[in-house]
Amino acid sequence: MKNRQIVLAARPEGLPKESDFRLIESETPEPGDGQLLVKTNFLSVDPYMRGRISEMKSYADPVAIGQVMVGGTVGTVVESKHRRYRPGDVVVGDWGWQEYALSDGKQVQRFDTSLAPISTALGVLGMPGLTAYFGLLDIGQPKPGETVFVSGAAGAVGSLVGQIAKIKGCHVVGSAGSPAKVDHLLTDLGFDAAFDYKQVTDYAAKLQEVCPQGIDVYFDNVGGALTDAVFTQINVHARIVVCGQIDQYNATRPPRGLRLLWHLIVKRARAEGFLVFDYVQRYREAQEQIAQWLGAGKVQYQETIVDGLENAPGAFIGLFRGENLGKQLVRVAQP
Amino acid sequence: MKNRQIVLAARPEGLPKESDFRLIESETPEPGDGQLLVKTNFLSVDPYMRGRISEMKSYADPVAIGQVMVGGTVGTVVESKHRRYRPGDVVVGDWGWQEYALSDGKQVQRFDTSLAPISTALGVLGMPGLTAYFGLLDIGQPKPGETVFVSGAAGAVGSLVGQIAKIKGCHVVGSAGSPAKVDHLLTDLGFDAAFDYKQVTDYAAKLQEVCPQGIDVYFDNVGGALTDAVFTQINVHARIVVCGQIDQYNATRPPRGLRLLWHLIVKRARAEGFLVFDYVQRYREAQEQIAQWLGAGKVQYQETIVDGLENAPGAFIGLFRGENLGKQLVRVAQP
Repeated sequence: MKNRQIVLAARPEGLPKESDFRLIESETPEPGDGQLLVKTNFLSVDPYMRGRISEMKSYADPVAIGQVMVGGTVGTVVESKHRRYRPGDVVVGDWGWQEYALSDGKQVQRFDTSLAPISTALGVLGMPGLTAYFGLLDIGQPKPGETVFVSGAAGAVGSLVGQIAKIKGCHVVGSAGSPAKVDHLLTDLGFDAAFDYKQVTDYAAKLQEVCPQGIDVYFDNVGGALTDAVFTQINVHARIVVCGQIDQYNATRPPRGLRLLWHLIVKRARAEGFLVFDYVQRYREAQEQIAQWLGAGKVQYQETIVDGLENAPGAFIGLFRGENLGKQLVRVAQP
Repeated sequence: MKNRQIVLAARPEGLPKESDFRLIESETPEPGDGQLLVKTNFLSVDPYMRGRISEMKSYADPVAIGQVMVGGTVGTVVESKHRRYRPGDVVVGDWGWQEYALSDGKQVQRFDTSLAPISTALGVLGMPGLTAYFGLLDIGQPKPGETVFVSGAAGAVGSLVGQIAKIKGCHVVGSAGSPAKVDHLLTDLGFDAAFDYKQVTDYAAKLQEVCPQGIDVYFDNVGGALTDAVFTQINVHARIVVCGQIDQYNATRPPRGLRLLWHLIVKRARAEGFLVFDYVQRYREAQEQIAQWLGAGKVQYQETIVDGLENAPGAFIGLFRGENLGKQLVRVAQP
């Protein structure tokens, strides 16, 4: 049986190109004792992966040229020589952009299909959902009545950040990259205000208009000039949750901008970065809470799905053009 | 009786000039009921005052043109119609650059002259000492064995930060602006390593050399390119205490530099600003602890003193040229 895989073909400069990836065919491996063979149903493409294919020093080694592209995945066990898994089990892991993968059962978790559709294992109940949950609640610590501003608000992380902030009683404002996304935030997700950053020239003036009480919590997925403007609008004791800086992931030279630290003194404010992996001991708590909100209709999620492993590079590149609403997924095989 | 005062004559552009200040003479006021008249012994010049004479929005209204220059002061009560003060009492306050000032007793605190010389009320036992204490211990939270790097380490704040960090069992490294200051840090204050930033071109390489285990706590008095380099050398869960940004106080346009927030994500690190005034409820705790360290010979302090009210502008401007070792004071009248 053939396995199709997408490997990193070249180290991208700037915005990745399709030719930075290559589809290869190999023999599907046979599971040995204690192993299972998983068939990929969905793979996740996320902005953070840009850092994983860069030579820039980061929290993990970069993907090597010729290596299967990394990323979150959910799939179905098709063959098992592992005593805890059987064919048909749905598992979540990080086996990357390939149709089949071997596992020893240690790097996968079983997904409870009674909770929600299995695609949510990569979205609202997976890494993006956990990122929103811990970043907002643990780092941002929003209090009722405070103003929470989220950049990249129509993405997988940002859309949940805004909805959780509403549950916590905050005034919630978001920015996104198209009129349709802004409409989604206001109409479907209950944001109090939202704007299309591509149609705004004076970010500070716009923020003053939509956050008239100033900004208490800024959940930053974006960085760049919008973040510069936010620093001028923060309140005393503001918390800046540094989650992503997609604005600079494709930079070909060290990004420069306004110096921001002075604002932290004047406002006695805090900027803090985090990685969701540090919260692994509390994943279950978060997933149960999010699943409960889902069941109660208090949060909703959007997915943008493309079909076919071969379209993974295009879907990934599309993230940097803002082509996704909510979670961007690639359906490799129907569940 | 004549009173001499220094008022702000013009709003400085860039580095302040002597002509931005003017010495005036006025009648010394007479204390009314409930008031006391204080004769200034020492006045403090501090980098933060640059912000107070700028039009830049900050945590307090700017000093108006023609207004007596603000700043910390210590002096002796010469006349009192206040039931709690008597002539000869030493009091600390913020009556600024003038020989005599009236007080209603609310904006002054009595200084215990048995603790230390009265000049320390503006230094190691005053605002700079409290800034070092709360900034390092409350925001920086150094643990034994961690590396603490302090910029502006030979100044009033930095020199105490380094010594407290040594008391807490840290590997302590500082930067300063002259060979004599570096020698002072190493020989007198017990720093483990120190360097003259003016003789270093590659800050990151120098930091790797003097902080081989990376940086866990950065106490930033300076900002600018040195701070940019520190962000590349921080450890996981590092704390960046943003105390001052003297590098940019005289900037005539919004300062730009490397974008730093990405490092906070990769290292799950925190940058936090603070103002010492927020800790007023705990000043006594800090002063007692610092006085105890002083008495036990565990911390020492340096003062750079110039004589004469008329030399206050020059002493203030000298801060930005790094002319001071330790606390820069102006002696207005012998105690």
